[in-house]
Amino acid sequence: MKKEKIKELKHFYYNELFENTLPFWTSRCVDNLKGGYLTYLDRSGNLMSTDKNGWVQGRMTWLFARIYNEYKREPEWLELAESGYRFLKDHIIDQDGRGWFQVTREGTPVRRRRYLFVETFAVIAFAEYYRATGDKEALDMALKVLELIYRLMADGTVPKFEPLVQTRGHSMTMIMISVLQNLRTCHPEGDYQSLIDTQINEIFRFFIHPEKKVLLETVGLNGEFINTPSGRTVNPGHAIETAWFIMTEAMERKNKELLDRILPVLDWHLEAGWDKEHGGLLSFIDCDGHQPEQVEWDMKFWWPHTEAIYACLLAWHLTGEDRYARWFEKIHQWSFAHFPDRENGEWYGYLHYDGTVASTVKGNFWKSAFHLPRQQLFTLQLLGKMEQEPVISL
Amino acid sequence: MKKEKIKELKHFYYNELFENTLPFWTSRCVDNLKGGYLTYLDRSGNLMSTDKNGWVQGRMTWLFARIYNEYKREPEWLELAESGYRFLKDHIIDQDGRGWFQVTREGTPVRRRRYLFVETFAVIAFAEYYRATGDKEALDMALKVLELIYRLMADGTVPKFEPLVQTRGHSMTMIMISVLQNLRTCHPEGDYQSLIDTQINEIFRFFIHPEKKVLLETVGLNGEFINTPSGRTVNPGHAIETAWFIMTEAMERKNKELLDRILPVLDWHLEAGWDKEHGGLLSFIDCDGHQPEQVEWDMKFWWPHTEAIYACLLAWHLTGEDRYARWFEKIHQWSFAHFPDRENGEWYGYLHYDGTVASTVKGNFWKSAFHLPRQQLFTLQLLGKMEQEPVISL
Repeated sequence: MKKEKIKELKHFYYNELFENTLPFWTSRCVDNLKGGYLTYLDRSGNLMSTDKNGWVQGRMTWLFARIYNEYKREPEWLELAESGYRFLKDHIIDQDGRGWFQVTREGTPVRRRRYLFVETFAVIAFAEYYRATGDKEALDMALKVLELIYRLMADGTVPKFEPLVQTRGHSMTMIMISVLQNLRTCHPEGDYQSLIDTQINEIFRFFIHPEKKVLLETVGLNGEFINTPSGRTVNPGHAIETAWFIMTEAMERKNKELLDRILPVLDWHLEAGWDKEHGGLLSFIDCDGHQPEQVEWDMKFWWPHTEAIYACLLAWHLTGEDRYARWFEKIHQWSFAHFPDRENGEWYGYLHYDGTVASTVKGNFWKSAFHLPRQQLFTLQLLGKMEQEPVISL
Repeated sequence: MKKEKIKELKHFYYNELFENTLPFWTSRCVDNLKGGYLTYLDRSGNLMSTDKNGWVQGRMTWLFARIYNEYKREPEWLELAESGYRFLKDHIIDQDGRGWFQVTREGTPVRRRRYLFVETFAVIAFAEYYRATGDKEALDMALKVLELIYRLMADGTVPKFEPLVQTRGHSMTMIMISVLQNLRTCHPEGDYQSLIDTQINEIFRFFIHPEKKVLLETVGLNGEFINTPSGRTVNPGHAIETAWFIMTEAMERKNKELLDRILPVLDWHLEAGWDKEHGGLLSFIDCDGHQPEQVEWDMKFWWPHTEAIYACLLAWHLTGEDRYARWFEKIHQWSFAHFPDRENGEWYGYLHYDGTVASTVKGNFWKSAFHLPRQQLFTLQLLGKMEQEPVISL
C-alpha cells in the first residue's frame, strides 16, 4: 500500500465518518425529552419504536466519549456521551449492577436477558466517560459492574442449558478482551494485563480448533468439539473481530509470537467466510461443510464487513503482507458498493444472499451507532499512524 | 372446482403423501437404538445431529397415530407412533408434566424453554395414541399435561417480560384451539366445547384488529395495539393457520356466523402476505407498512404455504366462492414449483426472497414430519368429502 493510497483512504474515511455516518445519528439520536438515545430508525431516520435497548445505550455512550477522548475534543461529543451516560446510570443499570436489555422511552423495564452484554457495554461506557471527565462515580460504576460480571461468570447466571450438558460460548470470552482493553486505556492505574491474558488464553485453549481451521462459537466445557449444528457453527465476522482484538493486544505488547498465533484465524475465516459466488461475507458456516443451521446463513450483514475491513488493514500494518492489502481492498470495495444508502445516509444493515437490500432499517436493537462508526474511527486512527509508518514490525 | 379436478387433486395428494413425504421420514426417522425420532436431516436424509427435540417427538407421534386412526389402520403406523410415545413418556415429559425442548439421543436433558409448546404437542400425541390403543395411561398423561398447561398459563411461568409491561402472545392461544379440538376427537366423553370457546373468543377479542385488517402476534393484556416493531408484527402463515382452526370449528358446529367472522382474517392475510413481485407468502409483515423487524421477513418458509393451501381449500368447501379456488390454485402451484426436492424427496423448508433454495435441510428442530404431511393428510381427507359434496352450506 503506497503512502498516496493511505492518504487517500484517510481522507475517504474521514468524510465517511464525519460527513455521513455520524451526522445521521447525531442529528436525531438524543432523546431530549427522556434522555438516552432513540435508535430504532427507518431508512430515512424516522423513529420506528421509542423503546430503548441497554446494549445500544452503552455502546453509543462509549463511542461518543471515545471520539471526544481520542479524536475531537469538542464539547458536543461529550454532551452526546453525557445523555447516554445519565440514562444508563438512571434506567439501565440496577442498584445491584445488572442491566436491562429493553426499557420503554421513560426507562420502565421491559425485558432482561440472561447473558451479560448490557453489562459489558455499560463498563466500557462508564470507563470512557470517566476518562473524558475524571468523574470518579463513573469509574466506580465501571468497576462495580465489572465485579458483578466476574461474579456472575463464576456462579453462572440463570443457566440456558442444563448442567448435564454444559457448553461454553465464544461471545463472552471475546467481548471481555475488548472490555478489559478499554478499561486499561481509561484506567491505567488498574491491573488488567493478567485478566486480558486469561481471556486470550481461553480463546486459544477452547475455541480455536486448528485441526478444523476454525474458531468455534460453542464448545464443551474443556473446549471439546460438539458434533451438532450449533457445535459446528462458525460465525466468520465474529471470529475476525476476535482476531483483531488479539492482534491489537499483540501490537500493544509488541508480541510477535501472539501475532503469529492469531493471524491464521484471520486467514481461515476470510477464506471460508467469503461468498465466492455472490461476494460478501457469509453470516454463518458449518465447520464440516454441512448446511448451516441458521436460515439467514448466506445473508450479508454489515458488521462482519466493518470488522473485516479493519482487521485486514491492521494485519497489513503489522505484517506488510500483500494478501492483507488485497483482502482489505476487496472487502472495502464490496462493502461500499453494497451497504451505503447514498440517499438518506449511513449503511443498510442486512442484505440478501445476492447483495440486494433485505431490510432498510438504519437502527434497531442491534444495529446502532457502533460497528460502522467504531470501524471508521479506528481505521482513520490507524491510517493516521500508517502515514508515518505504513508497516511496523513487532 | 369441478368433480374431475377434485378427483385429480385427491390422486395427486395421495401420491405426494404416501409416495414422497411419508416415505422420506418413515424409512429413517425411528431411532432403533434409543427410541423416539431422529429428524435432524440434510437434503439426502443423512443425520446432521442426534439431539432430539421435544416438539418434534410429540408432533410426529401425533401424526403417525392420526394416520392409523383415520386413514390407514395398518400396524406399521401404530408401531411408528409407539416409538415416539415411549420416548415422550420416558424422556421428554417429566414427573411433574413439564417437557424438555432438547435432549440428547439417549434422552439426557439439554434445554428447557419457557413456553409450553413441548407440552401442547405432548397432549395431542398422548391423546391420539390413546385413541389408537385405548391405553388409559396415555389418556391420563394427556389430561395431566393439559392440567399443568392450564395451571402454568394461569400462574405465568418464568416470565419473559417484566410485569410492568405485560403482553399477550397469539401462539399459545391459537395452539390451544387445536389441542382442544384434538382432545375432543380422541376423548369424546370429555367436555372441551367451552374451553374451545374461550380460546376462540380470546382470538377475536385480543388479537384480531379489524381496523387494521390484521391478526397481531403480540398485544397488550387487554388486546391493546402496541406501537413497536414486535407489536406491529404480523405473521401471515400463523394468522392463516388460526383461521383454518376456527373454520374447522365453524364446520364442526355448523356455525355460519363464526365462519363469516373468521373468513375476513383469511382474506386479509392472503392479500397482505402474498409477495406480489416474487410470489410466495412472506414470513413477516408490519401492519403499518414499516420495514418488518425480522431480517428473514421476505424469505419463503414451507409451513405458511402448507397452511394456506389447506385453508383455501377448506374455505372453498365451506363457501364455494371463486376467490378461494383461485387462491388455492395459486399457492398450490407456486409451492409445488418451488419447495419439493424431486431428487431426494420431501420439501425444502426455507427459500430466499426470490424463491431459490436458502437452506437444504429436510428436518431440524422446527421442520419435521408435521406441517407438510399434516396438510397433505387433511387435504386428502377433505378432498374425499368433496368428492361427495364439493361445497357444503352451514
